[in-house]
Amino acid sequence: MTNSGKLRFKNMRVLAIDPGFGRCGVAVVEKENGKERLILSECIETSAKDTFPERLAEVCNACERVIIEAKPQYVAIEKLYFATNQKTAMQVAEVRGALIALAARYKLPVSEYTPMQVKSALGYGKADKKQMAKMIHLLVKIEKPIRYDDEYDAIAIGVTHLAHSR
Amino acid sequence: MTNSGKLRFKNMRVLAIDPGFGRCGVAVVEKENGKERLILSECIETSAKDTFPERLAEVCNACERVIIEAKPQYVAIEKLYFATNQKTAMQVAEVRGALIALAARYKLPVSEYTPMQVKSALGYGKADKKQMAKMIHLLVKIEKPIRYDDEYDAIAIGVTHLAHSR
Repeated sequence: MTNSGKLRFKNMRVLAIDPGFGRCGVAVVEKENGKERLILSECIETSAKDTFPERLAEVCNACERVIIEAKPQYVAIEKLYFATNQKTAMQVAEVRGALIALAARYKLPVSEYTPMQVKSALGYGKADKKQMAKMIHLLVKIEKPIRYDDEYDAIAIGVTHLAHSR
Repeated sequence: MTNSGKLRFKNMRVLAIDPGFGRCGVAVVEKENGKERLILSECIETSAKDTFPERLAEVCNACERVIIEAKPQYVAIEKLYFATNQKTAMQVAEVRGALIALAARYKLPVSEYTPMQVKSALGYGKADKKQMAKMIHLLVKIEKPIRYDDEYDAIAIGVTHLAHSR
């Protein structure tokens, strides 16, 4: 690819988050010259022995480290799925709020996507976790092992953001 | 009061928040030598023209200013009331989460109180807003005009925290 080719395409780097307080999936996905590749992904895990504010702070601190290290230009986060357990839904909303405020501190625009939007962006509709993982490997260049489903979920949100930003 | 008398009582300063994204009541209440007094109170208002992340950031920034200026040792925040409007409930939960994470950044312990706990701490059970305001003036030394109900709500949460910390 020539330099002029490079100039034609915008490089986009997004921090994608599947919010949670027990497990939070995080991925940084980049689109360069029209190709998606994974920069990093991880699953932040917190201990049920800690208080909720402690777990919330731990998730935020881990995401802040990723912002500082990977320097994303955008944040994409899953919009709350109306869970059957309302207490859990509220706590996930609290994590979302903390992460939206974190993004604001770094002046990163936040986009929100529903699980339905993520599914249709990846075109896997009713696929199970395994099929979804396969699909993600077809769409994104991934050069590291992925250990957790939460990481795949975050990568999927990142891919959705890149697809919506075309 | 003598110096030895002052030593017997702990000085406690709490930042109390009635969370919201359109209007957020904030108060700093102090208990010194067994007496409550209001240090400051305000109602943070955000514009419906702004995006939700912008409004969330505005509330957080205003609360951060209060933490820096008034140097509270504790944060007390109203626990989510299960609203009939679930979308609003989720957004208030997001504000709560952002504020809990803010408190964690300043290493301030967070206590949460339900509206029921606030009511019973003030002993006003079924009182209306006007009676509640009167009650607050009896309990707390207030030397400034209070303009908004949201401020009274925040002061009530602060009083509840001081009562629970006896």
